[in-house]
Amino acid sequence: MKVFIVGGSGMTGRSIIDGLLESSTAFEIIALSRPSSLNSAKNQALRNAGVSVVSAECSGSEAALVQTLQGADVVISAVSAYALKDQIPLATAAKKAGVKRFVPCSFATVTPPRGVMKLAEIKDDVLAHVKSLYLPYTTIDVGWWQELAPPRVPSGRLDDTLVYPPTEIIGNGNVPSALTHRGDTDKFVARIITDDRTLNKQVFAYGSILTQHEIWNMVEKVSGEKLERNYVSREEIDRRVAEARKVLAADPDDMGKVMATIGPEYYLSWGIRGYNTPEYAKYLGYLNAGIFIRIPSLKHSRTS
Amino acid sequence: MKVFIVGGSGMTGRSIIDGLLESSTAFEIIALSRPSSLNSAKNQALRNAGVSVVSAECSGSEAALVQTLQGADVVISAVSAYALKDQIPLATAAKKAGVKRFVPCSFATVTPPRGVMKLAEIKDDVLAHVKSLYLPYTTIDVGWWQELAPPRVPSGRLDDTLVYPPTEIIGNGNVPSALTHRGDTDKFVARIITDDRTLNKQVFAYGSILTQHEIWNMVEKVSGEKLERNYVSREEIDRRVAEARKVLAADPDDMGKVMATIGPEYYLSWGIRGYNTPEYAKYLGYLNAGIFIRIPSLKHSRTS
Repeated sequence: MKVFIVGGSGMTGRSIIDGLLESSTAFEIIALSRPSSLNSAKNQALRNAGVSVVSAECSGSEAALVQTLQGADVVISAVSAYALKDQIPLATAAKKAGVKRFVPCSFATVTPPRGVMKLAEIKDDVLAHVKSLYLPYTTIDVGWWQELAPPRVPSGRLDDTLVYPPTEIIGNGNVPSALTHRGDTDKFVARIITDDRTLNKQVFAYGSILTQHEIWNMVEKVSGEKLERNYVSREEIDRRVAEARKVLAADPDDMGKVMATIGPEYYLSWGIRGYNTPEYAKYLGYLNAGIFIRIPSLKHSRTS
Repeated sequence: MKVFIVGGSGMTGRSIIDGLLESSTAFEIIALSRPSSLNSAKNQALRNAGVSVVSAECSGSEAALVQTLQGADVVISAVSAYALKDQIPLATAAKKAGVKRFVPCSFATVTPPRGVMKLAEIKDDVLAHVKSLYLPYTTIDVGWWQELAPPRVPSGRLDDTLVYPPTEIIGNGNVPSALTHRGDTDKFVARIITDDRTLNKQVFAYGSILTQHEIWNMVEKVSGEKLERNYVSREEIDRRVAEARKVLAADPDDMGKVMATIGPEYYLSWGIRGYNTPEYAKYLGYLNAGIFIRIPSLKHSRTS
């Protein structure tokens, strides 16, 4: 199975590639790279791992991109948020090259397609373009990164293991939300793209469902330290969202301003409204890809 | 089962009401009417048929609308294209009133949610709003009205039975497209809203799948008259679409200008791109509601 990946040198992309390399399926993996990055250290690391790295520009010549994608079974996009719109010409070229499955960049929480998160609207625009092409596709959402969920402890002794730890509990802290360990994404993707049932579906794959209070309780229990619980109200989240949207409205195509909406809009979506759950995903028509989890202690931790 | 209907005095709405009245399920039917139309002849006809007609304004007081919709099992919207955006406050009120199923106005051809038809984009905005409310819904698409499909015959002797007969064959005339007799819509709707499998789904219900050539051939055979075949090219459709969109771009919220895009964009969608088929509906995730047909001779007419 011949798999092309765009954004293979990024964190999500590299994780997906690792999963493809470790899978029992024999994948031929080709990473598309901007010409200027062809010889970067990250691309060299991909080559050393057995990945072909080829030059391509999503927003360059369509004919060249179609030529590059010939013979692809799957094209996976793991582009950065700034490059989401590059997927429009990429999908058009994929259709012309006869690609059998296109995986646009999603890999995030479940949220309504419009009206709540600007980032989700851009992703929905891309998916709508894919649909207008009648291009076979699969989207994969994975919830919130588990690595971003635990807070610091007062002694600081967990700091080395934390990535951007939260300082606030959103709303009442009792809203369940799906989490996935970033390192598990690779396993999901390799399985999902080799399964016919996931064709032309949105798929939700996640590790655990936890509220913020459950996470705080777990960290207190494991660390033996008492955590401060700093609540941020629904009204304050609404205020932050309104502020970010006001700034964006002045310049709606500025991806930097879109990025400023992401923080408060994620909080609104999973922390206040509670969209990031298997129940809401089912309502939206997602396939549930089942439970996979890296850390067994988290698996059965949901108490309610 | 308590069913509220908005737009019940329009053609589609009245057809739906007739189907509910004829159904073996006992429906309590309440038509919402603008206060100014409460005593119209069409509303009087509804009352005579056993329908309650109550005053309501979608864009008026939310509290009043929520109060009106108390106890509704289903709210069906069959509003005119001009009033599609009224469904935003209607859906919000339906959510607050605890409505068990909301049926936004769709009742059209299958087409991509964005990028091809402006009308479809407005409907997709409404559906996205419904989804952000986590409001149970069903959408129903029925293809192209069968009554609009047959052309005139030179003698004019079919004119009394025709509604807006086509004068052109779109593209090569060989693109299959789904048709439904308007009078069958009522049967679809009564069945679909009483079936749990259709909850939170888009449903495609249609009578037949025919190309324009097949329709022209049929009319020639039945009438014994030779028809002129006046082809309009893909390029000409593209030109008409571009022209209508250019006019709309100057004033994107003007529903009158939106209406001017509908003709060429429908032709583009079902006549050129071929989206209005069960295969494409399946790709989009629709449930197929099966084959119902009023005119038996059309049922098995597809030759390819």
